[in-house]
Amino acid sequence: MSDADTLLRLAALNTEYASCIDADRLEEWPGLFLERCLYKITTADNQRRGYAAGIVYADSRAMLIDRVASLREANIYERQTYRHIIGMPGLRSGEADEIVAETPFLVVRTMRDGRMDLFATGVYLDRVRTDADGKLRFAQRLVVCDSSRFDTLLAIPL
Amino acid sequence: MSDADTLLRLAALNTEYASCIDADRLEEWPGLFLERCLYKITTADNQRRGYAAGIVYADSRAMLIDRVASLREANIYERQTYRHIIGMPGLRSGEADEIVAETPFLVVRTMRDGRMDLFATGVYLDRVRTDADGKLRFAQRLVVCDSSRFDTLLAIPL
Amino acid sequence: MSDADTLLRLAALNTEYASCIDADRLEEWPGLFLERCLYKITTADNQRRGYAAGIVYADSRAMLIDRVASLREANIYERQTYRHIIGMPGLRSGEADEIVAETPFLVVRTMRDGRMDLFATGVYLDRVRTDADGKLRFAQRLVVCDSSRFDTLLAIPL
Repeated sequence: MSDADTLLRLAALNTEYASCIDADRLEEWPGLFLERCLYKITTADNQRRGYAAGIVYADSRAMLIDRVASLREANIYERQTYRHIIGMPGLRSGEADEIVAETPFLVVRTMRDGRMDLFATGVYLDRVRTDADGKLRFAQRLVVCDSSRFDTLLAIPL
Repeated sequence: MSDADTLLRLAALNTEYASCIDADRLEEWPGLFLERCLYKITTADNQRRGYAAGIVYADSRAMLIDRVASLREANIYERQTYRHIIGMPGLRSGEADEIVAETPFLVVRTMRDGRMDLFATGVYLDRVRTDADGKLRFAQRLVVCDSSRFDTLLAIPL
Repeated sequence: MSDADTLLRLAALNTEYASCIDADRLEEWPGLFLERCLYKITTADNQRRGYAAGIVYADSRAMLIDRVASLREANIYERQTYRHIIGMPGLRSGEADEIVAETPFLVVRTMRDGRMDLFATGVYLDRVRTDADGKLRFAQRLVVCDSSRFDTLLAIPL
């Protein structure tokens, strides 16, 4: 796979990732991860200091599915919407069977009354592999947020 | 045309689209649509409820040309500038002769005095076809805004 | 080099450019420019009026290296972080040995206390060439900001 192909396949994965969250198709979001995976939301500060703990942490697709179920129960998701704008991935060297990439993102939140605000910016640190069915899936998505000030609503996937 | 080519040609069309609006080359904007086309600005709420009416509606290139002329007469466009940041398109399945895509966007507005604000976020629902001259043009661009609160200035293309 | 390759190589250069600034690897930023180059930050207003002077101006890689050294001494960079979101480049016609492109950008600033704001939006007017080592580098990057209201912090590269 050429670098150009890799870039475009990654970009397509990111577009699908954003669409699952922003169009409220949350149930499809865990399917973009491998069964054994790492999904973590953390801050640039914590990342720099080497803190392993994340604000959100999941190490399997099953945990991501649970998380979506909790969000649906809490009904928290209905109160606002999100819009991800994801930059082009920057490829990093990795092992032969995986793609390592860093990708900047920005999320705008729109409240029910129409107000919009900058909700989060940061970088995705990704490890992506081709799964048994030939699709690219996340082995790791580390969401490193620029801001350390978090809303209680950060239970929402970023 | 491979998916990679399609993605890049769509991205180029979107870049040109944004440039026409943001660099105040509005007169070139209708030329990115087919003669018979659909351009509509609506909200996610209205879209969900199946309301057909849009805040802005045009079903031909001629109507888009009229709209630009009105904007020039009203001189409304001089008072602020816009900056579109458009994500990578997500391809959807469509008929053989057209490309169907969903593409996230964000628009920042800059006022004459230098203040900037988040003006709009949302998703473009597009149907794109190759015209007689070989260029890609919009058969449909549905601009679905996340926020339902609109400024009177929304006469401006998004 | 096909247009598709050109677009993707430019996008990769932009991703690397943003990463140098946003991940605080400022020392690597001058290496993305040719030894003889033009880097200028200006405003859309000044650009329209044909004012040559920029808010920041450098015409060699050495000047960019000096600028980074000054920023480190002033320690100004530690107080906030930036996040660039860069759109896909729009190719323009240029001389045979260079790529001419216009690329929209948005920068969000995050303060130490976690507050985020829209710091700048605008367009990069670029001339890019293949250097002796085969890498693409900027012969020119003109940063044209939409807003004319500047923070004193604009000593930071955009």
